[in-house]
Amino acid sequence: MTTRTLARHGGLFFEEFAIGDEVESVGRTITETDIVNFAALSGDWNLIHSDAEYSKSQMFGQRVAHGLLVLSIASGLAVRLGFMEETVMAFRGLEWRFTKPVFIGDTVRLRVKVQEKKEMARLGGGLVTFEMAVVNQRDEVCQRGAWDLLCKARGAD
Amino acid sequence: MTTRTLARHGGLFFEEFAIGDEVESVGRTITETDIVNFAALSGDWNLIHSDAEYSKSQMFGQRVAHGLLVLSIASGLAVRLGFMEETVMAFRGLEWRFTKPVFIGDTVRLRVKVQEKKEMARLGGGLVTFEMAVVNQRDEVCQRGAWDLLCKARGAD
Amino acid sequence: MTTRTLARHGGLFFEEFAIGDEVESVGRTITETDIVNFAALSGDWNLIHSDAEYSKSQMFGQRVAHGLLVLSIASGLAVRLGFMEETVMAFRGLEWRFTKPVFIGDTVRLRVKVQEKKEMARLGGGLVTFEMAVVNQRDEVCQRGAWDLLCKARGAD
Amino acid sequence: MTTRTLARHGGLFFEEFAIGDEVESVGRTITETDIVNFAALSGDWNLIHSDAEYSKSQMFGQRVAHGLLVLSIASGLAVRLGFMEETVMAFRGLEWRFTKPVFIGDTVRLRVKVQEKKEMARLGGGLVTFEMAVVNQRDEVCQRGAWDLLCKARGAD
Amino acid sequence: MTTRTLARHGGLFFEEFAIGDEVESVGRTITETDIVNFAALSGDWNLIHSDAEYSKSQMFGQRVAHGLLVLSIASGLAVRLGFMEETVMAFRGLEWRFTKPVFIGDTVRLRVKVQEKKEMARLGGGLVTFEMAVVNQRDEVCQRGAWDLLCKARGAD
Amino acid sequence: MTTRTLARHGGLFFEEFAIGDEVESVGRTITETDIVNFAALSGDWNLIHSDAEYSKSQMFGQRVAHGLLVLSIASGLAVRLGFMEETVMAFRGLEWRFTKPVFIGDTVRLRVKVQEKKEMARLGGGLVTFEMAVVNQRDEVCQRGAWDLLCKARGAD
Repeated sequence: MTTRTLARHGGLFFEEFAIGDEVESVGRTITETDIVNFAALSGDWNLIHSDAEYSKSQMFGQRVAHGLLVLSIASGLAVRLGFMEETVMAFRGLEWRFTKPVFIGDTVRLRVKVQEKKEMARLGGGLVTFEMAVVNQRDEVCQRGAWDLLCKARGAD
Repeated sequence: MTTRTLARHGGLFFEEFAIGDEVESVGRTITETDIVNFAALSGDWNLIHSDAEYSKSQMFGQRVAHGLLVLSIASGLAVRLGFMEETVMAFRGLEWRFTKPVFIGDTVRLRVKVQEKKEMARLGGGLVTFEMAVVNQRDEVCQRGAWDLLCKARGAD
Repeated sequence: MTTRTLARHGGLFFEEFAIGDEVESVGRTITETDIVNFAALSGDWNLIHSDAEYSKSQMFGQRVAHGLLVLSIASGLAVRLGFMEETVMAFRGLEWRFTKPVFIGDTVRLRVKVQEKKEMARLGGGLVTFEMAVVNQRDEVCQRGAWDLLCKARGAD
Repeated sequence: MTTRTLARHGGLFFEEFAIGDEVESVGRTITETDIVNFAALSGDWNLIHSDAEYSKSQMFGQRVAHGLLVLSIASGLAVRLGFMEETVMAFRGLEWRFTKPVFIGDTVRLRVKVQEKKEMARLGGGLVTFEMAVVNQRDEVCQRGAWDLLCKARGAD
Repeated sequence: MTTRTLARHGGLFFEEFAIGDEVESVGRTITETDIVNFAALSGDWNLIHSDAEYSKSQMFGQRVAHGLLVLSIASGLAVRLGFMEETVMAFRGLEWRFTKPVFIGDTVRLRVKVQEKKEMARLGGGLVTFEMAVVNQRDEVCQRGAWDLLCKARGAD
Repeated sequence: MTTRTLARHGGLFFEEFAIGDEVESVGRTITETDIVNFAALSGDWNLIHSDAEYSKSQMFGQRVAHGLLVLSIASGLAVRLGFMEETVMAFRGLEWRFTKPVFIGDTVRLRVKVQEKKEMARLGGGLVTFEMAVVNQRDEVCQRGAWDLLCKARGAD
C-alpha cells in the first residue's frame, strides 16, 4: 500500500496519458450569481439568460445558463483535477455540442476520457484529445465533445 | 435614402440570413481584470494565466488570456451586433481552434459570416452555421471556427 | 421591402435624431447579485440594500435596489439599443427622479424619447436631450428624467 | 474637550442638518478594474470605456471612466461619511453635470454641502438637498450637482 | 448638548483607545452571491461552499459560508465603524475561532471591544488588541477572537 | 514505479496526515484587480488599499494588499493542493501574523507543514494543525501562523 502525503501529484506528461483512462470531476452548483456574472463578463445579455419575464414565454420557461458559462466552469473543474498542472502548454481547440439546458440550481460535473494522442516533437510534447461530457445531478449529459490540449513531454520544459 | 430612427432593428429570422453575408463587430480590449475575473469565475487558475513569475519562463514569456475567456467575450461581441436579439433560441455547438495567444492589452474583434443554413421545421426554425474569427489589433486571427445557432422562423414564436 | 442583413446599423449622428422619435429597450431582471455587486463596486452598503433583517422593519419591508444601480443598468440598456455606438462623445448631464422602488426579481426596461436638440458646432456635433423612463414588469414608472448626450455631427469625426 | 470613543455616531436626523454645513470625503483611486467591472455590471460597453485602440483616436486620447461609475463611487464615498446611516430613507433625485473626464489612475473625493431643507411631515421627515462635487487629485471639479435625500425626523422611525 | 455636523470624526489615535470601550457594527446579510464571489476570488471551491447536492449529505445539510468570507466581511464592518480611518497603519495579526456555521441568508454584525494596548514608539504608535465577535441575527456568536492593529500616535504621522 | 493516471487522489483522512510532512503550493500573482475586488467584497476600503495618492505618503509608499485578501488567496492555494477535498469538514481556527506587506505584482505561494494532530472521535475525525507560511517571489515570509482543520476519519463519512 502506498503512503499518501501532502505532496502535489503534478500534471501528467504527454507520455503518461493512457488512451481510455477516465475520471470524473467533483461538482459545482450553477447559481443565479454565475449567470449574472458571466453575462457581465462576456457581454452576452441575451434575454433567455437575463430577463426572467421574457424567459417564461420561451422554450424552457425559465432563464437558462449560457452554454459557454457551463463550458467555462467545466474547464475549471478539469483544472481542479490536477492532471494539467504545469504540463499543459495550450488549449488548441474543441468540438462541442450543447445538448440540454442547464438551469439555476443544477449541479454539474465533468467526465474526462483520454481519446487520442499525437506526438508533436517540434513543440516539445504532443496533442492529447479528451472526450469530455458535462453531466447534471440527474446524470444527464448536457454538453459533450472533444478538447485538444497540447501537453509537454517529460523533460522538454 | 432610408431615414434612420431610434428603432431597434431586432434579430434576424431564419429566412433572413443570407449565405455569404458578413459583418465585423466593434472591439474590446482584454485587460488583466478580465483574466483575473475569468480565472475566478471559471476556476481555471492555470499558472500561464495567473502566475506572472512562472509565465516569464514559459512559451509566451508572459501571462496569456484563457482561450475560453476570449471565446466568451467573442460571444458577447456577437450579441452586441444585434442580429440574435429574440430570434436565437439556442447555441447548439461549435468547432473552434485557438490559433494565437491573446495578451493583456490586446484588442479583439469578431468577424462573422453566414456559412450554411438547415431548416428544422419541427423546432420552429433552423440551424444557421456561422464562420467566426477573432482578430486582434494587428488583424491577426487568434481564434476561428464555426458556431451553430438555432434561429426562429418568422412567425414561429 | 428592405432586405435586412447582419450589418451593424451604427450610432445615429446629431442630424439624424428626430424630435419625438421614441423606442423601448429590452428588459433585464434585477437580481440579488446585482445589488450585492453594486454595493461592492460603489461602496454603498446602506442597510436598506444590504441588511435583510433591518429592511424588514423599514418603509418597503424588504431590501431595495440602489437607485443608481437601476440608473446604471438603464444606461446599459440604452447602449444596447445601438443608436449611441461610436457617435456619442460624452454624457453631459442628467435630471433624474427615483419615483418607485425596484425590488429583487423586478424586470426593468428603458423608454427613450428624443426631446430636444441643440447644435454645438465648436464641439463637432450637438447636444441631444432624451426623455427617459425606467419601467418595471407592471409598466410602472420607477425612475424618470432627462439625459443630455453630446453627439457627433456627420463627418465631424 | 470631548472624549472620543469607538461609538458609531449614527446618521443625522432631518432636524440636525444645518444649511451651509460642509465636509469632504476621503479619496478613492479609479482603476481599470473599476471601469471593466462597471461596464460589466451596467452593460455599457461603449468603446470610449472599453476599447483602448479606438479611444486613442477620440477626444481624450485614452479610455474614460463612465460618468455613472464615478457618480456611483461618489455615492459610496458619501455613505462612508456616516451621516446617512439608518436616517436616510430614500434617494429621491438628482441634477448632475459631468464636466471633466476621469481617467484610469485618477483619485476622486466628494465635497458635500447642505443646500436646502424641506419638511415632509407626512413621510416622517424631510427632503435635504445637498450640493455635491466630485474633485480629482488636482482639485479639479469633474462632476457636480444636487442630490435630494429623504431623511427621517428624530423619533419618526 | 453637542451639535452634530456632517464632519467626519476620523479614526482614533493610539492614545484615544480606552480599554473596555465597546461598540457593535451594523449588519450585513450573507448572500449566495457573497459565497460564489468569495469562492471565485479566493479559489476555495471546497464542496461544502459550492456544491449544493454534496452539501445536503454533509454535517450542516446545506452550503456554508467560508469562514474567511465572514471574517473578511467582519473586517469591512469594522472599517465602516470609522475608528480606523487614516489612523490604523497595519493589521498585525489575529487569533480566531470559527465556532458556528454561517448560512445563506444569515445577517452578521461585529462586536468590538478594546482589550489591551502596547506602546511601540519606534513605529510611531502602538498595538491595540481588540476582542472581536461575529454574531448572527439570533445573537449567536459564530466567530470570535482577537485582532492586533498597529495604530498611529497623535501627531506621529 | 507507479503508473500515474487521471485519477483524482482525493483528500487525506485524519489517519493519513503525518506530522512533519510538508508541501509548497503553486503561485498566484496579486493584482490590482484582486485588491479592488476584495475591497469591494469585504467593504474594507481603508485608504492604504484604495487611495493611491494617500498611500504615497504612508509607511509603504504605495497601496498594499489587504492582509485578509492574501490569507484568503492562501486558503485557495491550499485547497488547490487537493489534500482537503471531501475530507476537511470545517476550518476551526487560526493564529496568524502579517509580517511583511504584499504589493501589486507580487507572487505568493503557501508553505504547508503538518504540525500536530488531535483525535476527536465524537466528531468523526480529528483536528489537524498546520504550520502555514505565505512567501513572495523573493522567498520572504509575508504571513505565517497555524490553521486548525477538522478532518474526517476514514470511513466516518
